[in-house]
Amino acid sequence: MAEPRVSTIDGKLAQEFAIPSHVEEVKDKMTDFAKRHAAEGRRVVVITSGGTKVPLESRTVRFLDNFSSGRRGASSAEYFIDAGYAVIFLHRHRSLYPYTRMLSNINMMDALQFSSAGAASNSGEVVVNQQVLPNITKVLKRYQEVKERRLLLPIEFSVLSEYLHLLRAAAQALSTIGSKAMFYLAAAVSDFYIPASEMPEHKIQSSNGPLQLRLNMVPKILSPLVKDWAPQAFVISFKLETDATILLEKAQRALDTYRHQAVVANVLDSRRGYVMVVTPETQAELILTEDDVKNDVEIEERIVSNLTSAHKKFIDQ
Amino acid sequence: MAEPRVSTIDGKLAQEFAIPSHVEEVKDKMTDFAKRHAAEGRRVVVITSGGTKVPLESRTVRFLDNFSSGRRGASSAEYFIDAGYAVIFLHRHRSLYPYTRMLSNINMMDALQFSSAGAASNSGEVVVNQQVLPNITKVLKRYQEVKERRLLLPIEFSVLSEYLHLLRAAAQALSTIGSKAMFYLAAAVSDFYIPASEMPEHKIQSSNGPLQLRLNMVPKILSPLVKDWAPQAFVISFKLETDATILLEKAQRALDTYRHQAVVANVLDSRRGYVMVVTPETQAELILTEDDVKNDVEIEERIVSNLTSAHKKFIDQ
Repeated sequence: MAEPRVSTIDGKLAQEFAIPSHVEEVKDKMTDFAKRHAAEGRRVVVITSGGTKVPLESRTVRFLDNFSSGRRGASSAEYFIDAGYAVIFLHRHRSLYPYTRMLSNINMMDALQFSSAGAASNSGEVVVNQQVLPNITKVLKRYQEVKERRLLLPIEFSVLSEYLHLLRAAAQALSTIGSKAMFYLAAAVSDFYIPASEMPEHKIQSSNGPLQLRLNMVPKILSPLVKDWAPQAFVISFKLETDATILLEKAQRALDTYRHQAVVANVLDSRRGYVMVVTPETQAELILTEDDVKNDVEIEERIVSNLTSAHKKFIDQ
Repeated sequence: MAEPRVSTIDGKLAQEFAIPSHVEEVKDKMTDFAKRHAAEGRRVVVITSGGTKVPLESRTVRFLDNFSSGRRGASSAEYFIDAGYAVIFLHRHRSLYPYTRMLSNINMMDALQFSSAGAASNSGEVVVNQQVLPNITKVLKRYQEVKERRLLLPIEFSVLSEYLHLLRAAAQALSTIGSKAMFYLAAAVSDFYIPASEMPEHKIQSSNGPLQLRLNMVPKILSPLVKDWAPQAFVISFKLETDATILLEKAQRALDTYRHQAVVANVLDSRRGYVMVVTPETQAELILTEDDVKNDVEIEERIVSNLTSAHKKFIDQ
């Protein structure tokens, strides 16, 4: 394959966004991971998940953030693995994590207890109360299996600059496996940032009066990702709006602009029960019924099922 | 006691910061908690902990945040309880929590395992691997004891407006126990906000170009807290700076302005090993030695020891 040409965004990334010191090491890890799994016949998906931090000061006390628990990315990772994929999980530090997410809504101390008397040989053991966590056996088994088979490679970011450089590294790493690679860009990435050159070093003093901030637009990384870094991959972006009336148009405009394969479009308030998968030719509405919700069906199962089928067709073409 | 006079900040709070629907209910809970413990001879401390979110849109996708894991507040709560206090823990949703904080740096799934064979009566049990969590027995015991004795009342906030209204409610609730009340204001509260009236409803569109933000200054709530809401309480504020050269002066200026009892002053980079406790008359430096660090001594133990002594003197006067 030809060396990807240096686009203006590559230059901007190098200039205005601090390069994480471990990026080359992570890239090697991702390359090995992708090659190994592709050799074993697996497709590989890079899932981005969680929000990005945008620092307002270089010794950061304050930052801009995006609403995102990482729920969609974490649950999707599980369904991709169930569908036979290997997953690179590029996620915000402390956002929800596959399998472990089941522990996120409780105080874990409330789910632990000392092992009951009677089992004298085990006295002093701390056990999980399975009335508090009824699915723990099933989920822990699956977690251990996935770990044992090394199907999940977790990579963390916190700030926007880490996200941007690590995603580029992931794209370059996965360019080695061509169309077997999928990008599922579910992270809530900031559209705005303060360039390093305009950032104060120290904590902004409130005694100086009201705060004026001027934020630049973050370069649209989807463009070089599709054109230059991983041109053969199957790429899905996400569109979250609060205003449903502009959603479809924005999804279609994104496909026109970036020429990737699909947009998963959703509205903040209804995102757990309704999404639209938009491609240049089709629009599929995925909806959870009341029965689905009762049976703990998650919409990510439907999204992943839709996209893995589309990816298969894409590869076969 | 006379009805607290309506200061301008009360008016501002009502006008510009949405009142949480459960604030009266929480206030009653806090009042009961404080009275019960004071009647049993305990002092009561309100600890605020974690950062505050400042939304940029009313259907919030983006927000400003403050760097804070909630570590200092969560560990201090444990030491206050050890010192005989009852604790109202007013903390940011998902920030570190007393006792449970020991689980925050691991993936909990990595600390769980299926109970070993041999103990047949326990088959199917999920147990904590005490090689991963060597202190779990001690900490779980203490957690259960504190819960049983109802020494810790957790109250959550996420956004700045919740924090402000809940802190006022806490101050009013604790005014019923006079000087037995302490406020330990460790939360990292935003100095800036966007008033509801100037906030766009929908997600800010990046296609409109660079983002200009103008943020107002958050009213200094310490002033009515000390003067009006809980005038007999022992009040400690915190000062975090990145620039060590302005720290002491800023602490002293705060004491001059607000007339409270103490400032815990610290610098971002060294905050885990060094703080200054500044009162109108004294400055005490608290420092962890290398040996302390080796022995897992936490600086919060020293801070709490210093302040509980000072609180005792304050009550006896």
